[in-house]
Amino acid sequence: MENSKTQTVQATVMTPEELLNHWQGHRGLTRRTIEAFPEEEFFTHSIGGMRTYAKLIQELLAIAGPGIKEIVEKNTGTFTEPEYPNKKEYYLKAWDETTDIINENFAKIKPEDFQKQIKLFGQYDGTITSSIMYFIDNEIHHRGQGYVYLRSLNIEPPFFYER
Amino acid sequence: MENSKTQTVQATVMTPEELLNHWQGHRGLTRRTIEAFPEEEFFTHSIGGMRTYAKLIQELLAIAGPGIKEIVEKNTGTFTEPEYPNKKEYYLKAWDETTDIINENFAKIKPEDFQKQIKLFGQYDGTITSSIMYFIDNEIHHRGQGYVYLRSLNIEPPFFYER
Repeated sequence: MENSKTQTVQATVMTPEELLNHWQGHRGLTRRTIEAFPEEEFFTHSIGGMRTYAKLIQELLAIAGPGIKEIVEKNTGTFTEPEYPNKKEYYLKAWDETTDIINENFAKIKPEDFQKQIKLFGQYDGTITSSIMYFIDNEIHHRGQGYVYLRSLNIEPPFFYER
Repeated sequence: MENSKTQTVQATVMTPEELLNHWQGHRGLTRRTIEAFPEEEFFTHSIGGMRTYAKLIQELLAIAGPGIKEIVEKNTGTFTEPEYPNKKEYYLKAWDETTDIINENFAKIKPEDFQKQIKLFGQYDGTITSSIMYFIDNEIHHRGQGYVYLRSLNIEPPFFYER
């Protein structure tokens, strides 16, 4: 039988703060992989017909900022990839702006809303948590590909475990 | 002022069941990448001096099963990579055995323990959640590399979003 004490003991696998830190920790590592690329190869290097790292980063930028905004503002957007001039500095600038956008908007998510069902970019169903987890997973996935690009260019990638 | 009702409303970013499903969903996808590799290239193909996919999978197998066992049994082990004969079937068998080991042991973690501090393989500090998240992140990272290997072999990898 439950009493009022046991009712307050609830599983907390992860706090909102930990989810944010997890995300931004990964984003910091991804930023360092952008920095590790030579200016030219960032836009040209590819293996097996895959997208360049610039194109992969463009996708990540199109997801993170617009995604968190849509979660908070509850407006339905469509998925569009931004265009930047072909210089790494513009990607790094957009990356840092997105860092702020994430921090500002994440703070507006009510703790009790993380398990609410949403539909992102007009088509992706999930909870707020599972959507953010997908953003992170997708970033780790593409960054892992960037590691192979760097290795194939004889460049040492940043340490995976440093966040 | 809090009353007994508001005390029971607590942020649940993620339930234990969701963390397990997240993990096993990723593991299912990784299993399909192993299947996608040609028998020979699984053990020989490499880019930029990196490990073969067999070696990367060997690492993942050395982490997942022994890691979850250590979390549950609270004994301190050292990190050792298992050796398998050079056939994909042995890796797939070990993968499936690990699936069961994870399910059996994960069920034994008390919900209130996920935030407890542990030290894995005698050296990695973190909570139970952050340790398991690291296992998953590391798997996504290496699998992303496997995707490049597959693409460079002209093989279509499984869909990333199918779990």
